[in-house]
Amino acid sequence: MKMPYFAVIGAGNGGQAIAGHLALKGFKVNLYNRTYEKLIPIIQRGGIELEGEVEGFGKLNLVTDDISKAVKDVDMILVAVPASAHAMIAEELLPYLQRGQIVVLNPGRTGGALEVYNILKKRSDLEVVIAETDTFIYACRSSNGKAKIYKIKDIVSVAAIPKDKTEEVVEILNIAFPQFVAAENVLETSFNNFGAIFHPAPTLLNAARIETTKGNFEYYREGISPSVAKILEKIDNERMMVAKALGVKTISAKRWLKESYNADGDTLYEAIQNTKAYIGLMAPDTVNCRYIFEDVPMSLVPISSIGKEIGVKTPTIDAIIHLASVMHGKDYWEIGRTADKLGIRGMSPKEIIELVEGKRKEVATA
Amino acid sequence: MKMPYFAVIGAGNGGQAIAGHLALKGFKVNLYNRTYEKLIPIIQRGGIELEGEVEGFGKLNLVTDDISKAVKDVDMILVAVPASAHAMIAEELLPYLQRGQIVVLNPGRTGGALEVYNILKKRSDLEVVIAETDTFIYACRSSNGKAKIYKIKDIVSVAAIPKDKTEEVVEILNIAFPQFVAAENVLETSFNNFGAIFHPAPTLLNAARIETTKGNFEYYREGISPSVAKILEKIDNERMMVAKALGVKTISAKRWLKESYNADGDTLYEAIQNTKAYIGLMAPDTVNCRYIFEDVPMSLVPISSIGKEIGVKTPTIDAIIHLASVMHGKDYWEIGRTADKLGIRGMSPKEIIELVEGKRKEVATA
Repeated sequence: MKMPYFAVIGAGNGGQAIAGHLALKGFKVNLYNRTYEKLIPIIQRGGIELEGEVEGFGKLNLVTDDISKAVKDVDMILVAVPASAHAMIAEELLPYLQRGQIVVLNPGRTGGALEVYNILKKRSDLEVVIAETDTFIYACRSSNGKAKIYKIKDIVSVAAIPKDKTEEVVEILNIAFPQFVAAENVLETSFNNFGAIFHPAPTLLNAARIETTKGNFEYYREGISPSVAKILEKIDNERMMVAKALGVKTISAKRWLKESYNADGDTLYEAIQNTKAYIGLMAPDTVNCRYIFEDVPMSLVPISSIGKEIGVKTPTIDAIIHLASVMHGKDYWEIGRTADKLGIRGMSPKEIIELVEGKRKEVATA
Repeated sequence: MKMPYFAVIGAGNGGQAIAGHLALKGFKVNLYNRTYEKLIPIIQRGGIELEGEVEGFGKLNLVTDDISKAVKDVDMILVAVPASAHAMIAEELLPYLQRGQIVVLNPGRTGGALEVYNILKKRSDLEVVIAETDTFIYACRSSNGKAKIYKIKDIVSVAAIPKDKTEEVVEILNIAFPQFVAAENVLETSFNNFGAIFHPAPTLLNAARIETTKGNFEYYREGISPSVAKILEKIDNERMMVAKALGVKTISAKRWLKESYNADGDTLYEAIQNTKAYIGLMAPDTVNCRYIFEDVPMSLVPISSIGKEIGVKTPTIDAIIHLASVMHGKDYWEIGRTADKLGIRGMSPKEIIELVEGKRKEVATA
């Protein structure tokens, strides 16, 4: 197989790291960022300096704030921006996409591929392939053209719309990274979203502590007490009930801690306390953080909205969405991934599954 | 006017203090408590030792765990138990009440008088007079027959069902305490419930901090940060909207801090920070506290339930009730004062007002 040509969208923590790493591996890589200022030190270096699990210099082919140039003739577009920017990026990409290009959201959170598919399908001349991962491949931090990769994850699940393109997406990604594996469909990558459980509710339920201590406490080990963990278990249960109604294999957050960190416990609280990777992880220093402004609209709202369409109630998730909206003075129901934005309004579980499998061919609704 | 004969129901902090104080003032007072053990040291003393703003010994007429003896031939029954016990006390009183006796809930929280009225009206042979206050008359602590009264409040509002009995209730109370003043009706005493604003939401939104520090932080000044205060303002606004639909004069929590503590501020957050009385008040050391198990079912549930009957939405209050229910593993909607328990199911605002004014004469529904 020929060496694929990549564009990376977003020069944040993840985007700089993956662009640099791909370049170091010898791939041709373009890096796009909307804000030019962020690109200046990268342009000056000519690429990304990597440290941590990967060391070396990744020389980039092109560093640009012109998205049309960034994606021209590439094989795969890796989107590494907050999920709240996915729709905007999709609109920006829309005029420039070429037949056969593949867009991968890293990660999609919940409903990322569906939301972007619902936008890209306006280009009926394209056979759109849009994929999403369930998590980002690294734990990393980047700035000014220097990326530190703390850890490369063992497994990253990926799925495409239409479903029968997933294998092709995985094959291309595997040329660069063996860690990518195929999920059943994008509902599986979307519903195995543990940020939805661990990010918004503990932040909300520690709002005053975050604001009066600037986040000076251990987010998981002190921020998730037995009572908070009970609320998380309920949220997790609601997530799994919606997923189950869509035929999606999910695991509980407690099981995920076991599989990811070998952490045991009779309750979610105990499992969190027994997760060594959480020791010393401090809380965000403000409630105006991605744990709310990304995970509420892009994880909790789509779980709830899909649930509403197919008749599965999510009252605990809804309570968190409402209180986060009041706290931030925003309507996260409006901002978030609703059934309309996901293009699934009025659909049955069967119809939603047909959609992600690429068996429903529709005209764009917007 | 003759010296009224009192029964005090409940030998907790408030009950011991008010029974002792009334006895010290020369009134004949019986004290009832369901648990006999709590009465033993009081029986041994023969009454209550008072300290703080009031000093001396109040000799009690009768100290008993037999409610029939406690209330026999008294003029006024002062109920000083958590609001969550009001319905049970009403059922226990039911067979023994005598014509002309007055029951006063100290305080009623939201809907106390309505809930008790809905029970006592089964005794159609009685002309039931049931009253409630908006707050307890003292800040006090009591144990083993010793009561410390830190502060006697300046004003305590009281109202009766039927409304035209309020003046008589106030006159009797004023023989003992000049602080009692008449409210317009029990909707006014019920909706000027600031515990509904300051108790459940800050406790819930500091759950992990309470559990991991045993409440080692200032409840108001650290527990109510700007974000938490935004949520309280919304809850307060919902309370006022329901009250307004019932024609009730209420003030905002911010205004109440000004009137009660002379605390200023452009926002509720600022007013709380400027309330000197809150300095040093620490959080409860557990989330299994009255701020949740009393104030959620007896303050928030009735505000929400009345709102639902008359078409005023309370989504923020509902979110707090739901999360508290999940946290405690209880259904506070079921436990709490619903429209059924308040006897107002299906009523319009006008009909609810007629009910509290004593203009609706109905047969008991249960």
